[in-house]
Amino acid sequence: MTAPAKRPGRRPGSADTRGQILNAARAEFASRGYEKATLRAIARAADVDAALVHHYFGSKEQVFLAALDFPVDPATVVEMAAGDLSRVGERLARYVVALWEAPEARERLLAVVRTVTSNEEMAALVRGFAHPRLVAPLAARIGGPDAEARVEMALAQIIGLAMARYVIRVEPIASLGAEDLVALLGGALQRLLGS
Amino acid sequence: MTAPAKRPGRRPGSADTRGQILNAARAEFASRGYEKATLRAIARAADVDAALVHHYFGSKEQVFLAALDFPVDPATVVEMAAGDLSRVGERLARYVVALWEAPEARERLLAVVRTVTSNEEMAALVRGFAHPRLVAPLAARIGGPDAEARVEMALAQIIGLAMARYVIRVEPIASLGAEDLVALLGGALQRLLGS
Repeated sequence: MTAPAKRPGRRPGSADTRGQILNAARAEFASRGYEKATLRAIARAADVDAALVHHYFGSKEQVFLAALDFPVDPATVVEMAAGDLSRVGERLARYVVALWEAPEARERLLAVVRTVTSNEEMAALVRGFAHPRLVAPLAARIGGPDAEARVEMALAQIIGLAMARYVIRVEPIASLGAEDLVALLGGALQRLLGS
Repeated sequence: MTAPAKRPGRRPGSADTRGQILNAARAEFASRGYEKATLRAIARAADVDAALVHHYFGSKEQVFLAALDFPVDPATVVEMAAGDLSRVGERLARYVVALWEAPEARERLLAVVRTVTSNEEMAALVRGFAHPRLVAPLAARIGGPDAEARVEMALAQIIGLAMARYVIRVEPIASLGAEDLVALLGGALQRLLGS
């Protein structure tokens, strides 16, 4: 591998190299799925050295999250499901509501919902990533019959609630205080995921 | 009121009169909210006689549903919540899944989700309608503390699940048979709404 400092034969990093890599990554992840996509193919499509992709982003997962501009590391969510399953709903709800209530993270999350809803390439991007990196590991932590389907119901509840509160802004959900929202969402997630 | 057959002074119905009325209706509902919007103002903005709006659509609610191209009559959903609350989740889930599995209704429902997500005018349209015509009457049928918030959690679960199954198409939810889907969604709705 050629380190970026060594000025590889292909184009060195420039102001919009990062953007070119992300465009190439979105196309590669959408067409081949997260599992089959490679940093090498992304680098080739972006006309840069693979080491440069590694230098900018570190791992395939980090390239993916940057391509989606997604403010959450799925590994953190999966970690959160570890431990006492009798409180898993509240832990997840507290984490999710804290993200939503931070305006910058909320905007990025809603932008993902918007693009996924209106853009098949972005939907394919999420489709290929969500199962192996989020649903399957969460289901393994949760256990029990139909764990994957219940995890997806929980994620659907979370996304639907975000749309109700922040996009449609229907009352009374739109004006609930954060603690009341944690209690409401936490109860629903607990019934879906808890032991 | 002047009946359309009598050729009122304003422009009579033409091929795209219906479309003009719906454009005017979307603007009026979005800017004033469902409750304050009037058929008279919609007619004025569309430059047609109010009787013509009545002739084409019947009621304000029907104008609204046509403006949104929404394939569901909320009154039907509210009726469904009447009766045995120990089976309300299954009844609602069966109705919703049957709609989703009909391709034409599904396409129209997803189009609403798409436009609401990406268009603030459409979000405002739904905001002004959803509470008085769907959430409040459903909550009155369901009863109990926090009934409105629980109804909105149920609607959020339904919309989120539609996105997971039909937009993102994440497995295993995307390939579940209709009966398994009714059982999964029905259970979640029952826990949110049931007595």
